[in-house]
Amino acid sequence: MEIEKNKVMLTGDRPTGALHLGHYVGSLLSRVEMQSKFDSYIMVADAQALTDNFSTPEKVRANVYEVVKDYIAVGIDPKKATIFVQSQVQELAELTFYYLNLVTISRLERNPTVKSELQQKEFGQSIPAGFLCYPVSQAADITAFKAEIIPVGEDQLPLIETCNEIVRKFNRIYRAEILLEAKASLSREARLIGIDGKQKASKSLGNAIMLCDEEDVVKEKVFSMFTDPNHIHVNDPGNVEVNVVFTYLDAFHDDRDEIDTLKQKYRKGGLGDKVIKSLLNDTLQKILFPIRERRKSITKNQIDEILIAGTEKSRAVAAVTLSQVKGVMGLSYW
Amino acid sequence: MEIEKNKVMLTGDRPTGALHLGHYVGSLLSRVEMQSKFDSYIMVADAQALTDNFSTPEKVRANVYEVVKDYIAVGIDPKKATIFVQSQVQELAELTFYYLNLVTISRLERNPTVKSELQQKEFGQSIPAGFLCYPVSQAADITAFKAEIIPVGEDQLPLIETCNEIVRKFNRIYRAEILLEAKASLSREARLIGIDGKQKASKSLGNAIMLCDEEDVVKEKVFSMFTDPNHIHVNDPGNVEVNVVFTYLDAFHDDRDEIDTLKQKYRKGGLGDKVIKSLLNDTLQKILFPIRERRKSITKNQIDEILIAGTEKSRAVAAVTLSQVKGVMGLSYW
Repeated sequence: MEIEKNKVMLTGDRPTGALHLGHYVGSLLSRVEMQSKFDSYIMVADAQALTDNFSTPEKVRANVYEVVKDYIAVGIDPKKATIFVQSQVQELAELTFYYLNLVTISRLERNPTVKSELQQKEFGQSIPAGFLCYPVSQAADITAFKAEIIPVGEDQLPLIETCNEIVRKFNRIYRAEILLEAKASLSREARLIGIDGKQKASKSLGNAIMLCDEEDVVKEKVFSMFTDPNHIHVNDPGNVEVNVVFTYLDAFHDDRDEIDTLKQKYRKGGLGDKVIKSLLNDTLQKILFPIRERRKSITKNQIDEILIAGTEKSRAVAAVTLSQVKGVMGLSYW
Repeated sequence: MEIEKNKVMLTGDRPTGALHLGHYVGSLLSRVEMQSKFDSYIMVADAQALTDNFSTPEKVRANVYEVVKDYIAVGIDPKKATIFVQSQVQELAELTFYYLNLVTISRLERNPTVKSELQQKEFGQSIPAGFLCYPVSQAADITAFKAEIIPVGEDQLPLIETCNEIVRKFNRIYRAEILLEAKASLSREARLIGIDGKQKASKSLGNAIMLCDEEDVVKEKVFSMFTDPNHIHVNDPGNVEVNVVFTYLDAFHDDRDEIDTLKQKYRKGGLGDKVIKSLLNDTLQKILFPIRERRKSITKNQIDEILIAGTEKSRAVAAVTLSQVKGVMGLSYW
């Protein structure tokens, strides 16, 4: 990856829970890498989280702090990346407000990401307007910083497309070249499966190993992992494909040859689950120990300081964009 | 009407054209009356106008000044009523952003006011999200000022209902009594018909007498008015019900007895259109002359001063509400 400090990268998380190994391998590690290469903004998307958690704001609020602790613990450096809280950058709400005119309801309803989320969330006929419109709010977040690099999973590509449709329409209607189109930067890792082997790892499903989990909790979760139900005795041949332990070893163990040898043995028969679970436990404990220790050392005051500085810087940048946007829309009067 | 200076009245106009006699009799006159009785805010709703005029922002911008000229010309006193520009009170956009979570798309689609406007506007399947959501933006405008008195026409009652649904939902979910329910203050006059007798008076239809129309233009419009097509000769009996001239005389002439006598004569036959049109012309010229003269004397600088002061005051009030709203939502962190 080239160093392009003149390009802006924007990413972030909805603070609906502390972060877990799925986030670590899916986004956090690459952010640590990217923070030196791009002008990086990391947004704690509390306002977006409220679009489907509006009845439990205290949960969102508490998790703002948990998420930022996780950021710092994994090595995101507030001196390199600007960490900010979405709701505290009021300019984002105002940009959203004006962008809402540039996208149709039917276009939002057809957005595949939104569509599949709506199915999961079981809103039925009661879709909150804020939820349906959250891609517009994301377009505001992205364009406010003139971000061109947006790390996303494949399932989020339609959100980037909605953003770029708004960008093009805005620039065309207001005869301006103010807003920049964004480019998705696809994450290399697929979403990490949960320890139950059934669904993606998720805090709310209780099937994730959290970055803040204590040593014994990690061990317990590793040893409860789903392997191959037909691999009953050590000498039974076992499946390594649909096997959570091997999936995690693939994702977190750094010696690929060692894992390949183990897989061969496991397939043939003669390797017990206890051995591979112990190896995975050691592997994860080694990764998680320094993260957990750093996490514990961070005070709320330190987080507030990080967020205040990051939010102030973000507001300054977003205010420039907003002023340009309102300018070409004729909304600056005196 | 009692004087309740502790109660807030909010009203306003979309600046899509200068104002006309329909506005005068339907809302402006009563605002002049109300400005001494309530803590009055009059909003030039440029942001709301953009929800269906987003491609012609220069029209909206220019009409902000036209509308405020009309306000001052008819006697709205910026010392009594706070006149402000919606887009310059950023807090309103932010409130809108959070209220969007509290109303469903289907509820907005069922709103009778929005429904009938959608039919008129011929958006087809391309309804801008901003347009569908404008009742939420109105709820932000109303609640930001804790306005309880909202002068509206009957066709706008569903907008007040949407506002109050948001208020109740907000106060319930966030266990707060911050937002106040609004009460519609129905205008006494029905909407004034256009000079063509076909549709309501409207600048865009070209069938309205504008407050800024010159004397000869007013006269021309009055003499082109639709009367009774069967009243061809002076002695023919005429219809006074579906007769624009009599409708306007009813609305603008202050001697009801004189008009009743004329109506009797017209019904029976023996009263020519020219006579009643001359009377209406005299009546309107008497009303419009001082308005037009005052309008001409107002400079752009004066309007800017009025709007700067009004907007500053409005922002201060709206900022208090926004801070209360974000406070109970847990969105104040440090």
